[in-house]
Parts: sequence; structure tokens; C-alpha cells
Amino acid sequence: MARKSGSHAEITGPKVLKAAERLFARHGFAAVTMRQIAAEVGVQAGALYLYTRDKQSLLADLMLAHLRELLAALPAPDPDPRAALEGFVRFHILHHLSRRDAVFVAYMELRSLNPENFAAVEELRRAYEDHLETIVQRGMAAGVFRPRDSRLATLALIAMLTGVTTWYREGGRLLPEAVAEQYIALACDTLGAGAGQSRS
Amino acid sequence: MARKSGSHAEITGPKVLKAAERLFARHGFAAVTMRQIAAEVGVQAGALYLYTRDKQSLLADLMLAHLRELLAALPAPDPDPRAALEGFVRFHILHHLSRRDAVFVAYMELRSLNPENFAAVEELRRAYEDHLETIVQRGMAAGVFRPRDSRLATLALIAMLTGVTTWYREGGRLLPEAVAEQYIALACDTLGAGAGQSRS
Repeated sequence: MARKSGSHAEITGPKVLKAAERLFARHGFAAVTMRQIAAEVGVQAGALYLYTRDKQSLLADLMLAHLRELLAALPAPDPDPRAALEGFVRFHILHHLSRRDAVFVAYMELRSLNPENFAAVEELRRAYEDHLETIVQRGMAAGVFRPRDSRLATLALIAMLTGVTTWYREGGRLLPEAVAEQYIALACDTLGAGAGQSRS
Repeated sequence: MARKSGSHAEITGPKVLKAAERLFARHGFAAVTMRQIAAEVGVQAGALYLYTRDKQSLLADLMLAHLRELLAALPAPDPDPRAALEGFVRFHILHHLSRRDAVFVAYMELRSLNPENFAAVEELRRAYEDHLETIVQRGMAAGVFRPRDSRLATLALIAMLTGVTTWYREGGRLLPEAVAEQYIALACDTLGAGAGQSRS
């Protein structure tokens, strides 16, 4: 990251990332210019280069910051596999519903990363998947979960959970916490942990 | 659709749609010009307007054609709810794995549709979701499936299944048919139909 150090950069850096995220989500990385990002932040185009080397670095910083924040916020898994799964599902749903631009850009603009940045993003994404897969495998070892393939079940679960960001609308019939509770039941059953949906 | 009738349009129309799909998937709708699409097809920029009114119409035609093809190819559901679910899952996985550019554009460029085209696309998407929800509801009535909420379970399943397009790589350890079989087991268990994953 080419951000300038000091208090000014401390304030403008996140503002630049937020503005870039908003514009990339709305128009796509390729269609957005550094000039537009500068206008969105409210600085001269030249001033942007105090905070980032180029648009590619901005995209990579954005996606890496999103994933680092995700990994840092992950709750430590409960020793009980079922409670660990519940904790993960609740965290994933609530975290992603509150960061929909970031989720959209993270999925959509993988194609726009250069190979080096793509590898860095993939490494963090893989660490997140591994966290869930470890929960799944512990549950399998304990005889609580019984998917045929822990990796495939992990990827299936993450896609299922992240899907809420495509249909959830604020002010709809369910609050995020209620959505999370329903997905906890679905996730338990997906892993064959049974009784997930009959407990209500 | 503003396509010209006759044999020439019959050939070029699909070629134009395919070229647009490829470019939109690679660079995003906003970044692609009609000139680039014409070059990809191998015609003069002006000639494109014989086949489409503008880029917005091209995007709408693309997404509507994808959804109409999807709906037309859907297998009639088996009277047995579990067999109907298996048929749907197999169809969805195999259909989507073979059309990944279309899936990516359909998800990513909803934001780029004007309100009228968005409504038309949403209507077809809703019809597809309703098809699966009917299967889920029949299974609930028969006591085979037991999700708390048929709509939410339907959306969760579709997200889970479509997720394969983000991680599946040709030449990987699983052929599409084997992926479909694993997702059939996961989907059965997600709906609480049990025994989905212990049958192997």
C-alpha cells in the first residue's frame, strides 16, 4: 500500500477506499476513472496519488482490506462443532449484510486483479474457507456432521450464506438476525446435523 | 428486440449476443463500447444497429435470452418430491456450469438495466424461483421436506447451487456430473429430507 503516513492520510485513506468501493460497485472497475474517484472524495485528481499508486492498487487494497477485516472479526470457534457452525453462520450473514458493496466488488472484480494481487486475495479467501472447513471436519470427526466431502460442503455453505446479499432488502419481512437464525437451521441440515429446522 | 428479420439476422443476431456476453463478462457493461462489440463480431460499428437499438437493448436481450432458455430447458418435475428436487439440482448445476459467462453477466449487470428491462428480467427470474419453490412446497405437503420457510429455503438452495460457477475448474478433480451428485445430497439434507449424504 502506497498510503502516505501521518494524520492526513489516516483520514483520507479510508475515504478514498470507500469512494472507490462505491464507484466500482455501481459502474465496474474498468469504467471508473481516477478522476471520478477524486471527485467522489472531493480532492484534486493529482492528490489521489498521495494515497495510492494507481487504480489497480486501489482495487487490491480494497479487496485485501475487506478480507483482512473479515478474518480479524471472525469469532473463535466454540469447541462444540454445532455451536461453532452456528457462530460462523451468524457472523457471516450479519457481517456480509452490512457490507454489500464490498461483497459485490470482491466477487465481481476478481477478473480485474493482476496475477500478483489475485494470488494475495486468493490466499486470504482460502484462509477464510479453511476456517469453516476446520469446523466442518471437527464435526465430522465428532460424528455430528456427515457431508461426503468437507471441501465441497464448505464451498456450498459459503455460497448459500453469501447469497443473502443478493435478495435481502432493508425494510423487508425479516430482520438480519432472523435471517441468520433461519440460515443456521439450513446450514445444520445441509451438513446432515439434523433437527436444525424442527427445533422452532 | 430490434433484430432485423431474415436469414442474415438469424445468423448475426446470436453472434452479436455472444460477442457482447463475452465482452461484458470480461470488462463489465459500462466499459464496453458498441465499437468493441462490432470488432469482436467482425462487422462495421454501424452494422450493429441493424441488430440492436443500443447497448442497453443488447444487455436486456442477453439476459432475457439466458432466462428464457433456462425456463424452456427446465425438466418437468417428477411427481415424487425427492426425485423432482434431484432433477432440478442436476439440471441447474449442469446448465449453469456450461454457461458461466451468461451467469456472471446475469448477476453482475442487474445494476446496469433500466427499470423496464430490470422488471422484465426479474419476472423471468421469479418464475424460475417459483418452479423450485413449488417442488419444495409439494415436498413439505408430503412430509418429505421440512424447511421453516419455503421461500427462504428456495433462495438459499439456488445460491448454493449457482455457487459452483465461482469455484469449478475444468480439469479439476470432479466432473460436472459428480459435482451434481454431491449437490443433490447436500440439497436433500438442506431441506431436511435426511439420508441424502449417507447413501454413498
